[in-house]
Amino acid sequence: MRTRVTDMFGIELPIFAFSHCRDVVAAVSRAGGMGVLGALYFTPEELEMELKWIDDHVDGKPYGVDVVMPASYEGADFPAEELVGRLQSMIPEGHRAFVENLLGSYGVPPLSADAEAGKVLLGWTDATARPQVEVALRHPIALLANALGPPPADVVELAHSHGVKVAALASTPRHARKQVEVGVDVVVAQGTEAGGHTGEITTMVLIPQVVDAVDVPVLAAGGIGDGRQMAAGMALGAEGVWTGSLWLTVEEADTPEMARQRILEATSRDTVRSRSWTGKPARLLRNEWTDAWESQESPGTLPMPLQFMLVSDALRRIGRSGASELATFPAGQVIGLTNQVRSTRDVMYSLMEQYSEALERLERITGD
Amino acid sequence: MRTRVTDMFGIELPIFAFSHCRDVVAAVSRAGGMGVLGALYFTPEELEMELKWIDDHVDGKPYGVDVVMPASYEGADFPAEELVGRLQSMIPEGHRAFVENLLGSYGVPPLSADAEAGKVLLGWTDATARPQVEVALRHPIALLANALGPPPADVVELAHSHGVKVAALASTPRHARKQVEVGVDVVVAQGTEAGGHTGEITTMVLIPQVVDAVDVPVLAAGGIGDGRQMAAGMALGAEGVWTGSLWLTVEEADTPEMARQRILEATSRDTVRSRSWTGKPARLLRNEWTDAWESQESPGTLPMPLQFMLVSDALRRIGRSGASELATFPAGQVIGLTNQVRSTRDVMYSLMEQYSEALERLERITGD
Repeated sequence: MRTRVTDMFGIELPIFAFSHCRDVVAAVSRAGGMGVLGALYFTPEELEMELKWIDDHVDGKPYGVDVVMPASYEGADFPAEELVGRLQSMIPEGHRAFVENLLGSYGVPPLSADAEAGKVLLGWTDATARPQVEVALRHPIALLANALGPPPADVVELAHSHGVKVAALASTPRHARKQVEVGVDVVVAQGTEAGGHTGEITTMVLIPQVVDAVDVPVLAAGGIGDGRQMAAGMALGAEGVWTGSLWLTVEEADTPEMARQRILEATSRDTVRSRSWTGKPARLLRNEWTDAWESQESPGTLPMPLQFMLVSDALRRIGRSGASELATFPAGQVIGLTNQVRSTRDVMYSLMEQYSEALERLERITGD
Repeated sequence: MRTRVTDMFGIELPIFAFSHCRDVVAAVSRAGGMGVLGALYFTPEELEMELKWIDDHVDGKPYGVDVVMPASYEGADFPAEELVGRLQSMIPEGHRAFVENLLGSYGVPPLSADAEAGKVLLGWTDATARPQVEVALRHPIALLANALGPPPADVVELAHSHGVKVAALASTPRHARKQVEVGVDVVVAQGTEAGGHTGEITTMVLIPQVVDAVDVPVLAAGGIGDGRQMAAGMALGAEGVWTGSLWLTVEEADTPEMARQRILEATSRDTVRSRSWTGKPARLLRNEWTDAWESQESPGTLPMPLQFMLVSDALRRIGRSGASELATFPAGQVIGLTNQVRSTRDVMYSLMEQYSEALERLERITGD
C-alpha cells in the first residue's frame, strides 16, 4: 500500500496503533505499521525507560509518542511549582464527599499507606507534558502526536527541528484547519465512536469533511477495528487509519485482567461519552461509575484537570479492590468487535487480509 | 453495480432514498435507485393520493413505502376508537403548561380557529399504521419498510403474499436478528448519525456487526451523503445504502423554506439525539426547542406516542409563526455536507461519480 503517509514515514502499512503499552507499540511497528506510545501516565523518568525499551525492541522501525497538551484547562497561568497545590484547593469538598460516598457504598477500601498515591496531574497540562516532549525528542521517534487541540506552535517547531513529524487529533473540520495553521503534518480525524477524548461527529460523517478542509494527509480514527472498517476509512478519503481500542485485548497488552474481560464481553452499546474521567467528554466503558456521575445525586463534573485530580486516587482504589462495577476506562464502540485475545501480529495480518477482501468485493460489485 | 439488492428489486443502483415527498421518491426511482415514501404524516386517504401520483410519475420503476409500527408504545392495548381520547387524558397538565410557556416566551400565537389541528397521532401506532399498509399494498410497491423495531409477523406475511419485500431499520445486531426471525428480507442497519429515530452505535461500528449477524442483505444507513460515504458503507459489507437527510434540500423536495435554509447552513455539530419530538430518541436539528427539553425547567419527555401528541400542535404553531429558533425537525449529521440546492438527478449522478472515484483511489493505493 502506498499513500502520502507511508511515504512520509517509510512504513509498509498505513496503520497507526495508539497504546500505553510499549510491547504493543514495538510489535505494531515491527509488523509494518506505526506504534504510538501514549505518554500520559508516565513521569519523564518512566517515559525515558519505556522509550529506551522500545528503541531496543523495534528493529529500527519508526514509532511515535502521543502527549496531551490541551488547548485550554484550569490553571494554565499558574506557576509550575504551585500548580498542583493551587489546583487541589479548587476542588470543592462536596465533590470529594460524593466520591467517598460512592466508593463507600461499594465497599472500596482506602489506599494502604505504602500504595503509590498522588500521581494526580499526569501529562494533562502544558507544564507536565513539556518534559515528556523533551524526553521523547531525545529518542529516534518519527512522530509526535497531540490530543485535545492543536499543539503549541513552538512545540511543533521543536519537533520539526528534530526531523520529527507532528500529528494532532481533530473532531471537527475547524479543528483540523487550526492544526494545519500551526504546522501539523498529519491530521487524525477522530469520530465520536472512538475511545478516550472525543467529539460528537461520527467517523463516517467527519472524515470526508476533514479531507476536504485540509491539504495534509488525514488518518481515519474512531471505529476502526477490522479490515472492512479500514477500507471504509480509506474510501472516505483517509490516507491511513489510527486505531486504539483494538489493542487493549491483544496478548502483548498490559491491560489489567478485569478490564480485558470486560472489553471481550462488551457490546458496542456498553460505552458512554462522559466527563467523569477528566472533565472533558471522553468515551469510557459504561458502568456504575459513569452512571453515578449522571445521576440526580451527582455534583456535576469539574473542568480539566480538576476532575482527574479528584478521581485519580479513587480509580486506583477501585482497581486494587477489584470492584469491577466501578472500574471504568477509555474504550471505543469498536470493543463490540473484539471478542478474543490475539497476538498483535495476528491482528495486523487480519486487518490486511480483510482489507484486501473488502476491496475485491467492491470490485466484484462494480464488475471491474 | 450488482448486489443481492439490485437483483431483488431489479434496480440499477443500490441507492435507497427515504423521503416524505412524492416528487423525490419518483425522481430517485426514475434515476435508477429506489425511492421510499415515508407514510407517517399522511392519512390513509392522503396516502392513496400520493401513491397514485407516484404510480403516474415513476415510469414503471420500483418504489417503496415506509411505515412506523413501533414494537412498543403506550396504549397498545386500547381499543382503536378510544385510543386518542385515552392517550390525551394521560398527558399531564404540567407538560402542557411547559409547552405553552415555551411558545409564549417566543411570542408564538395559538392556531387560528380554521387551521388544521388535531392530527395528533399520525401513524405512530399499530392501529394507525395498519390502514396505511392496506393502502400501500393496493399499489404496485416493491418494498414495505418499517421503522422502530420488527414489523408484526402478520404484516410481513401480508406483504409477502402481495409479492412485496419487507425491510426494517435496526440499530443493533440483536435487532437485526429479531427482524430476520419474523421474515424481513432486507435489514437497514442505521447508525446513530442518522436523522430521525436512531440508536447509539455509529454506522462505522454497526454495519460489519449486522452483516455478520444476519444472512439477508444489509443496507448501510446514517451518514451517507456523498459517494465516498456510499463506498465506505459498501466496504463495511453493505449491499446498498439507505439515505434520508440528503434529500431534504433537493429542488424537488417540499421542505419548508425556513427548514431548507437551516439545513444548508448547518454543520454536522448542529444536530442532537433528543426525545423531545416523539418520546423515543431521534436525531433532530439542535435549537432552542431541543435545548429547552434538556433544561432544568423541563418536565422530562413522555413515552411514545404521548410526546408527539403533546407537541404536534405546538410544532405546527411554530411552523406557521416563523419562530425559527424553535423550529426543529429530524435531520442527520450529514446535513453538514449539504450546502447547495441541486436536482435529485444531479445528486444521484454525483453519488455514482464520487463512488467510482473512491474505488479508483483505493485501487491506486494498493497498486492494483
